[in-house]
Amino acid sequence: MLLPAALERLVRELKKLPGIGEKSAARLALHILTSKRVDPVALASAIAELRQQVHPCPICGFYTDQPECPICRDPNRAGRVLCVVEQPRDLIALERSGGFRGRYHVLGGALSPLDGVGPDALRIKALVARVVATGVTETILATGTGVGGEATAVYVARLLKDKNVRVTRLAHGVPLGSELEYVDAATLERALSGRREF
Amino acid sequence: MLLPAALERLVRELKKLPGIGEKSAARLALHILTSKRVDPVALASAIAELRQQVHPCPICGFYTDQPECPICRDPNRAGRVLCVVEQPRDLIALERSGGFRGRYHVLGGALSPLDGVGPDALRIKALVARVVATGVTETILATGTGVGGEATAVYVARLLKDKNVRVTRLAHGVPLGSELEYVDAATLERALSGRREF
Repeated sequence: MLLPAALERLVRELKKLPGIGEKSAARLALHILTSKRVDPVALASAIAELRQQVHPCPICGFYTDQPECPICRDPNRAGRVLCVVEQPRDLIALERSGGFRGRYHVLGGALSPLDGVGPDALRIKALVARVVATGVTETILATGTGVGGEATAVYVARLLKDKNVRVTRLAHGVPLGSELEYVDAATLERALSGRREF
Repeated sequence: MLLPAALERLVRELKKLPGIGEKSAARLALHILTSKRVDPVALASAIAELRQQVHPCPICGFYTDQPECPICRDPNRAGRVLCVVEQPRDLIALERSGGFRGRYHVLGGALSPLDGVGPDALRIKALVARVVATGVTETILATGTGVGGEATAVYVARLLKDKNVRVTRLAHGVPLGSELEYVDAATLERALSGRREF
């Protein structure tokens, strides 16, 4: 063993984080050991206390340390327009865009029968109940563009069909600022079939 | 505030780590919050206990939780050949290569007068004393190839000049497996001027 046991142990724990391999874990651990900027006690307590203080919002499924999350509490958000996302990180990305002033519904994933993720594993029933109970007028399906995300969008749309709610889907197309030659074929195909009057 | 305070706090601490920006920090924090693979208590205690258990080896400057590090303790390592590196991470990289069976001396950095790092801020005096006291026969300078690393190598070599020790430098040249067209000009220049009989 080259590294001291305590260092090896931290490397082992850090490697369980996404996108962190052996070398990055060693680099992070050495930094935590020596850097003046890092306060290991503050970092450790932030990690240890996280799960005690944060839980899913019972309405939308995003994270909060209050009875309800700030978006569900905010009286200035349009409660009759719901944006349906797979994960809390999708909600964060959409909020960062500043383009949406309605509320969200986090499903907790996408349908994936091969992995045993059926409709009951997601917050789909809660979505339908919420749409009906709160008189939602539009549901924007912002699930992923992969097979699972598309299947989930189709499934949810079918359930909402007779619920007197407009069902829309995020537009797909060429990302702003990208060169056509670097855009993948499937995206270009969507951009063409979804072309709009100019 | 979109994110719960405990989550914001962890993101803030994680952002102090090298190579981790706002987005990666949020991704890691959400993963620590929800992943079944990650044990937040184990991760937190590994971080909190690190600095209590690990300290620099008094001989070579590498990290250890014992009175001396495993390399300095190992009777099978050639104690008369010293490899001088800037940081513990350089030692780890060289050990991974398996190409060296001597011992190390970690300087703790490179000379950088503009940042106020002079010879006294590095373990240079300790190196000279060690070379003299333990009858070192060869000192391999493995400091970096940047300005600071080169300056440090030159400075150390000058101090060791009259100490009856062979002073060498790691070879520079074309990395194995790389195409010439992708190797930078400075490296190619070194590879040419350092060419060897074939």
